[in-house]
Amino acid sequence: MNFTKHLAAVESALASYNLPSNIPSLIDPIQYLLGIGGKRIRPVLTLLSHELFGGKANDVIHQALAIEVFHNFTLMHDDIMDAAPLRRGQATVHEKWDANVAILSGDGMMIQAYALLPKNQESKFVSLFHTFNKTAWEVCEGQALDMQFERRLDVTTEEYLEMIRLKTAVLLGCALELGAIAANASAEDCEHIRLFGEHVGLSFQLRDDYLDAFGDPEKFGKQVGGDILSDKKTYLYLHAMKSASDEDKKLLHDLHGQTHADKVDQVKGIFQRCGADQLILQQSEAYYNSAIQHLNALHADEAHKKPLLELAMWLLERQS
Amino acid sequence: MNFTKHLAAVESALASYNLPSNIPSLIDPIQYLLGIGGKRIRPVLTLLSHELFGGKANDVIHQALAIEVFHNFTLMHDDIMDAAPLRRGQATVHEKWDANVAILSGDGMMIQAYALLPKNQESKFVSLFHTFNKTAWEVCEGQALDMQFERRLDVTTEEYLEMIRLKTAVLLGCALELGAIAANASAEDCEHIRLFGEHVGLSFQLRDDYLDAFGDPEKFGKQVGGDILSDKKTYLYLHAMKSASDEDKKLLHDLHGQTHADKVDQVKGIFQRCGADQLILQQSEAYYNSAIQHLNALHADEAHKKPLLELAMWLLERQS
Repeated sequence: MNFTKHLAAVESALASYNLPSNIPSLIDPIQYLLGIGGKRIRPVLTLLSHELFGGKANDVIHQALAIEVFHNFTLMHDDIMDAAPLRRGQATVHEKWDANVAILSGDGMMIQAYALLPKNQESKFVSLFHTFNKTAWEVCEGQALDMQFERRLDVTTEEYLEMIRLKTAVLLGCALELGAIAANASAEDCEHIRLFGEHVGLSFQLRDDYLDAFGDPEKFGKQVGGDILSDKKTYLYLHAMKSASDEDKKLLHDLHGQTHADKVDQVKGIFQRCGADQLILQQSEAYYNSAIQHLNALHADEAHKKPLLELAMWLLERQS
Repeated sequence: MNFTKHLAAVESALASYNLPSNIPSLIDPIQYLLGIGGKRIRPVLTLLSHELFGGKANDVIHQALAIEVFHNFTLMHDDIMDAAPLRRGQATVHEKWDANVAILSGDGMMIQAYALLPKNQESKFVSLFHTFNKTAWEVCEGQALDMQFERRLDVTTEEYLEMIRLKTAVLLGCALELGAIAANASAEDCEHIRLFGEHVGLSFQLRDDYLDAFGDPEKFGKQVGGDILSDKKTYLYLHAMKSASDEDKKLLHDLHGQTHADKVDQVKGIFQRCGADQLILQQSEAYYNSAIQHLNALHADEAHKKPLLELAMWLLERQS
């Protein structure tokens, strides 16, 4: 793949990343979470975007780390809120230490993400900061909506799309935009590369929702049917709530809260009968096509667009 | 007092402070905590410091708010960690909503503190950012040490001083330094004003520890003896653990965990017999004198030093 060396650069930078403190309860959880893996998609996007616009990947390695550190901060705090026992197959920070440690280390992690932002890019810092800060707030808004939706019965598919855009997609867009800003890309090109990232993110998330119900258990990384068993209000579910036949709506309602093995197949049937399975794939593909259009539209060497296209395809295909 | 109008300017700015979102669960807790009061010492310090070095207070009102918003973020998260039911006599955010809301709103609050930092001071932003970011991390370090000390028996008075410096004093110093940076003060003067704030903060905290044990119940805002009843490892306690007679050390050890009314007087006796009560007052006074020296040493109009001196004295005297 065309981004293997970028991945290696990110891993190497993370391995030598030092926090300016010697207080174990503050820094050990940060090093632990950064050390247990992850796909490192976001920092690689920053490096690739910088090269796309004529820069050298190594010049934005700190900005790439800023995005990865921020992303992991959101995971540390989200895992407390979700009471999640595992992250990447390992104990979450609040399980391995406790919730207080995870709150405080997460706070420190966000501060360290900001600290990385100006490094080696002082002249672009103001612009990098504004993009990063705006995105950080949007990610919080996404998490707030996600939590709000758990308690609401009237969520629309449009609201769901906005929630996943904020919670997941904008950070991918931001990762790319930081690389572009540092390479002096035009405002128009910064917008195109950001929307490329956002739309790849939306396409990915919708496909992930589809595969969670209809994926091949042998290939899909998570438990197929997990969203259905936990009554998660995904795009599939919200569409069915609105568009299924009255009979199927009643069935969906009756199945809520149940946990028997049959439930997954019954709900999948509802999703198929109302066309939610096809609609979500079409929606995912539409975002993918839009992402490609933004990539095509921006002014940069075509050869350098290839690794970004490959990364997007790899991201979407590896799940199925 | 010479800073009444500055206080009014801060309250007015807070009253018209808008958050860029319409998600109630994210912004309501922020507005709530900012709205239930507080002394607003920190933002007033930013305004006074800016005037001290020849600036106009209104030009740093956003930076003053940044400090106040950051301070309240630390309160929101610290209150979760301490499981505190009340803040300023009102329900804490995690009590009024829940811990997840307080975690996420606190995160958003920190992001909004950063967002305020460049406003109307774009040309000074890099310097403002570095000072703010370094301080934000130090405040986390202070909280981490505070939590660590609860589980340790071998904390020294020197370690305690460093903990309160990080947890409380550096943000006062930062508030002042931001005002000075925005007014183009020299590096030397920035250091003097920062250390004035830090040492006032240390002096205040030590005096607060003293009054918690020996204050006049009629005048002291909190319950006198509260630290003793909860076995808090303050400067007084740590000095006694080290310097009391063997008999008193044993008594202090035996009283640990007890909650009877006699305990307060018995522990106060131990503190007095080993001289901890006098030592803490001397230590507090030494920091106050050092603060005054830093204020005297900096190059600015003497008349403008007066409100800062008055504020420091007001802060220290209002407790007793």
